[in-house]
Amino acid sequence: MSFQYSVTARFHEVDRAGIVFFGRVYEYAHICFEEMLHAAFERPDTIFEQLGFALPLVHSEASFSRPIRQGDRLDIAMEVATLSSRSITFAYRIFGQADPDDLRAVVRLKHACVSFPEFKPVHRSPLFDEGLVRVGLLSANDLD
Amino acid sequence: MSFQYSVTARFHEVDRAGIVFFGRVYEYAHICFEEMLHAAFERPDTIFEQLGFALPLVHSEASFSRPIRQGDRLDIAMEVATLSSRSITFAYRIFGQADPDDLRAVVRLKHACVSFPEFKPVHRSPLFDEGLVRVGLLSANDLD
Amino acid sequence: MSFQYSVTARFHEVDRAGIVFFGRVYEYAHICFEEMLHAAFERPDTIFEQLGFALPLVHSEASFSRPIRQGDRLDIAMEVATLSSRSITFAYRIFGQADPDDLRAVVRLKHACVSFPEFKPVHRSPLFDEGLVRVGLLSANDLD
Amino acid sequence: MSFQYSVTARFHEVDRAGIVFFGRVYEYAHICFEEMLHAAFERPDTIFEQLGFALPLVHSEASFSRPIRQGDRLDIAMEVATLSSRSITFAYRIFGQADPDDLRAVVRLKHACVSFPEFKPVHRSPLFDEGLVRVGLLSANDLD
Repeated sequence: MSFQYSVTARFHEVDRAGIVFFGRVYEYAHICFEEMLHAAFERPDTIFEQLGFALPLVHSEASFSRPIRQGDRLDIAMEVATLSSRSITFAYRIFGQADPDDLRAVVRLKHACVSFPEFKPVHRSPLFDEGLVRVGLLSANDLD
Repeated sequence: MSFQYSVTARFHEVDRAGIVFFGRVYEYAHICFEEMLHAAFERPDTIFEQLGFALPLVHSEASFSRPIRQGDRLDIAMEVATLSSRSITFAYRIFGQADPDDLRAVVRLKHACVSFPEFKPVHRSPLFDEGLVRVGLLSANDLD
Repeated sequence: MSFQYSVTARFHEVDRAGIVFFGRVYEYAHICFEEMLHAAFERPDTIFEQLGFALPLVHSEASFSRPIRQGDRLDIAMEVATLSSRSITFAYRIFGQADPDDLRAVVRLKHACVSFPEFKPVHRSPLFDEGLVRVGLLSANDLD
Repeated sequence: MSFQYSVTARFHEVDRAGIVFFGRVYEYAHICFEEMLHAAFERPDTIFEQLGFALPLVHSEASFSRPIRQGDRLDIAMEVATLSSRSITFAYRIFGQADPDDLRAVVRLKHACVSFPEFKPVHRSPLFDEGLVRVGLLSANDLD
């Protein structure tokens, strides 16, 4: 059960060492998250305002297997890694295009569930979870 | 009559060609603009809300003389280049540290004067101009 | 005679004013340039090493018509603006997707022609120009 | 035993949510690392070439306590978190200026020790460790 999106490593993303700066994988992962929201919801640009619900990052991490170079076409596979009542963690595996053996990095982003705009801890939003079902990241059985 | 600020070129700002990506000079220039606002106004983070006035970019340009490399300490000298009733253009000369002959780039940023938050064209804000006088970018004679 | 590529404005590209940071349009334009190289040459990642020829930026500029917001799908149309024996200027018009009336910004990037890796001024490379013909940016008549 | 450096959160580093994009803390941490190299070595720009030794990232992570906003002055305190024969992990605590209770984020960067330019696993470089002693990140007792 994954959502997939592809990106290309760019000229300005390379660092002094000649490979893509490690911090860029967080941008790649978040781009995949943004496209997931776009696929899951009708008006993704205001989805958090609509739901009165937001998902600030509380932890991020990445493991690096192989360098990414300018021009590399990358496939990102996004999954739900951990689901709790008040948080959700997504994992993003970043591969060289069309080659599941060519793993470059794995990114994990843990989001807290908060009310919007008050930013107080709340339970996961059922309407948000339904969007994750629509894009195949949760099954109907995962819903409470 | 100039306002000055210094920055350092960073590892992640270098591009595939091994020098600082050309687009970064716009960030450097804007950092100098932000520090100018900080020096000119008591509460710079909400200065445009306070004045009911904003300065969106309508044109930006940069000429490149010599490459910038990781670790370079750079001095930026900011001046008012052109002043009209409804716009203001700042010029930013970027030098190698403490060496006025070591010009790397010149950036020009033209801002329109608009009301905030309506974004309708308006005349320059006298209160904003007074801030420019306080940091030495305008003289009292420049004020209407 | 234009080369076209599309990008999407991203969450992390927005600035404190809530719209895409003006400097990002230079990244968008350069992404289009990279894709043009990819379409024009067999091994684009080492094209300048192969040709012994490079194209450093000497001037860049952008005019801004309308703001770009997160999630906007943008079409970029790239053209040769000026061709001289020792330089080449590309123009990039950035539109809201599929709407030629929805111009957001126009970027112009002027590249000098230099030998690589010596970086001495040279005439335009005929092999580079042939690549531009292959992607429709020059006609055979433009070649010397 | 820490090395300290200060940065300011910038206009273009803010994201669509109005706070500094989470991935920027990795840039802040690496800026502190660069300044540490600058303080520790005479010619920091080529230190890895000189030592025949490099430190690619194999893991990065960050925990976020409080949001960072445009204009915030931030103090970064860098420490050696874990030292092994073939890797070194630095921790970076990012605070609101001069307020040790105002923790914003903690970043951890794990570097593998490799030969340069071959990138084969090697033991930690004694010459590199001596630099860490000079800036107070290791004591002479930590050296083998």
